[in-house]
Amino acid sequence: MRGKLILFPVSIGAEIEASLPAYNQAWLNRCHIFIVEEVRTARRNLIKMGYQHPMDEVTFLELNEHTREEEIADYLDPIERGEHIGLMSEAGLPCIADPGSLITRKAQLLGIEMVPLVGPSSLLLALMGSGFNGQNFAFAGYLPIDAAERQSRLRTMEQRIYKESQTQIIIEAPYRNDKLLKELSSKLQPTTLICVACDIMLPTQYLRTLPARQWGVLLDDADKPLSFHKRPAIFLLYR
Amino acid sequence: MRGKLILFPVSIGAEIEASLPAYNQAWLNRCHIFIVEEVRTARRNLIKMGYQHPMDEVTFLELNEHTREEEIADYLDPIERGEHIGLMSEAGLPCIADPGSLITRKAQLLGIEMVPLVGPSSLLLALMGSGFNGQNFAFAGYLPIDAAERQSRLRTMEQRIYKESQTQIIIEAPYRNDKLLKELSSKLQPTTLICVACDIMLPTQYLRTLPARQWGVLLDDADKPLSFHKRPAIFLLYR
Repeated sequence: MRGKLILFPVSIGAEIEASLPAYNQAWLNRCHIFIVEEVRTARRNLIKMGYQHPMDEVTFLELNEHTREEEIADYLDPIERGEHIGLMSEAGLPCIADPGSLITRKAQLLGIEMVPLVGPSSLLLALMGSGFNGQNFAFAGYLPIDAAERQSRLRTMEQRIYKESQTQIIIEAPYRNDKLLKELSSKLQPTTLICVACDIMLPTQYLRTLPARQWGVLLDDADKPLSFHKRPAIFLLYR
Repeated sequence: MRGKLILFPVSIGAEIEASLPAYNQAWLNRCHIFIVEEVRTARRNLIKMGYQHPMDEVTFLELNEHTREEEIADYLDPIERGEHIGLMSEAGLPCIADPGSLITRKAQLLGIEMVPLVGPSSLLLALMGSGFNGQNFAFAGYLPIDAAERQSRLRTMEQRIYKESQTQIIIEAPYRNDKLLKELSSKLQPTTLICVACDIMLPTQYLRTLPARQWGVLLDDADKPLSFHKRPAIFLLYR
């Protein structure tokens, strides 16, 4: 019998019990091959999640933004021999905001059965708490680097907020969070709402929705300027 | 001290242990007031999730697609008196593909602290298994009813697939699933990919990606026509 491709979420925040259903662990212990973004953190995550096999008996196959399609050509072969393979990302849900779909796309082409498991999505936890429209929303990853493209993307996003009532969700490299928020607060319409969801599921969780212009004021506060520097954050935009 | 608004996911599929982190239950038992879509199913869900208080000591406040904003004006008042309030949807994550954001938006305006908890999102489980782009995706709920608007929406969605590499996710009333899939398979470009994710987290789970034209063939199969009639399903489109 063929094996399956199991899609394992990885906990975010401090406690496993808050992040993952108990059920996931049983699936975890049925896998001895894992497709991961980075071997070092994958090992650490497996131990944290209560994986019980000796690490030197585990096969890790790397799949990250540097991986070319040719390299993964035989990754799924063990499934034909009846073995289950686990797919994990660095944190949160595999294939969401990460390059994992290179392998799930291949699995679909081969008609391999997949088992997506429940876990934390910082995008959706942020959307739940934002107060924004969760019946129509888009996640678009990072803004383009090029200034003109970036400006045009922001314009398109704002159009979709006002014309389509579509919540817009973006992320940024954590060391550029403050820069992005300053940019959003000055370039969006002053009354467009921005939600900053930072340190989701950590004791320092911050989840606040304010008009664009007010974020500018908070960031520039002379006494106690607000900062999200180097903290994981999601930015959501709506009206 | 002020209470908090706790955002409770509800399990989908058969087993609680597969759907929800153990941690959620502790929060559940700290709430005696719940904002719910429908009282009858909310009671059933609370019992299923191991809620330990007698039901006649629980206050239920209704919030669904018929609720007007005036009606919820005082829903959050108990939080000022130090009580926690739970927000639950019928299934899956609150405020995602449901009208819950009416109350979270108000909570944000009042500066009330929210605790979004981890749980199953059939949208994201479907996206994880589809093989489609999870770094750029949009969920737009139901297609418009009006024929011309519907056609134009489909065109826009297909444009966003090809120009923006954005996965498009939609849902339909379960008794119209087959009709929708037939429509998609005939109106989209024949090679546009459709993923049908049906009965997610149930033993009958179906999760398959095929070109649009092939779905038409499967639905019309003379011997064994495929059907998703009255089963919960998510439809995802990509290239």
